[in-house]
Amino acid sequence: MILELADIRIHPGQQAEFEQAAQVGLDTVLSKAKGFVSYEIRHSIESPERYVLLIEWETLEAHTVGFRASPAHAQWRAIVGGFFAQPPFVEHFGVVAASTS
Amino acid sequence: MILELADIRIHPGQQAEFEQAAQVGLDTVLSKAKGFVSYEIRHSIESPERYVLLIEWETLEAHTVGFRASPAHAQWRAIVGGFFAQPPFVEHFGVVAASTS
Repeated sequence: MILELADIRIHPGQQAEFEQAAQVGLDTVLSKAKGFVSYEIRHSIESPERYVLLIEWETLEAHTVGFRASPAHAQWRAIVGGFFAQPPFVEHFGVVAASTS
Repeated sequence: MILELADIRIHPGQQAEFEQAAQVGLDTVLSKAKGFVSYEIRHSIESPERYVLLIEWETLEAHTVGFRASPAHAQWRAIVGGFFAQPPFVEHFGVVAASTS
């Protein structure tokens, strides 16, 4: 399992519209992708224009090869791309350790 | 529930030692704090010196007031602080939406 962490800055004042669009895009496009496992949308308390998307994939390639080369990628960007104040910063993370509870 | 996202850069070549120390610090110090819920340590695939700690707290204040004002904060920093190449960048996040599965 690989975590995609996307660090997003949106244009000011568009929080409600972005949140609605992102959820639609995740539920209707991302969630249907091969190798998709789960997602969370999180909103920064300190930085009102900052969001992180936490997306779990079965493998790194499910995102970087499978999803990004599919028509779904353009569909996703069409839904949310207009809200981005700058290109999202995306990296992928393996698990080192986690609490057991 | 509030997510603390700590973005960490360590000195090169100390990955194994940092991972061991962070797990010890989380299991013996952080996990005992009032309002602590869960943690994950994640390691970037693209940036070998980058880690993120994902810590769930019952409330924002459990971390920013309760933990940071307690002796446990200094204990935690004593265990992991020497590995940091720069001060970690920390923000807190509320949940906007999550997949149901």
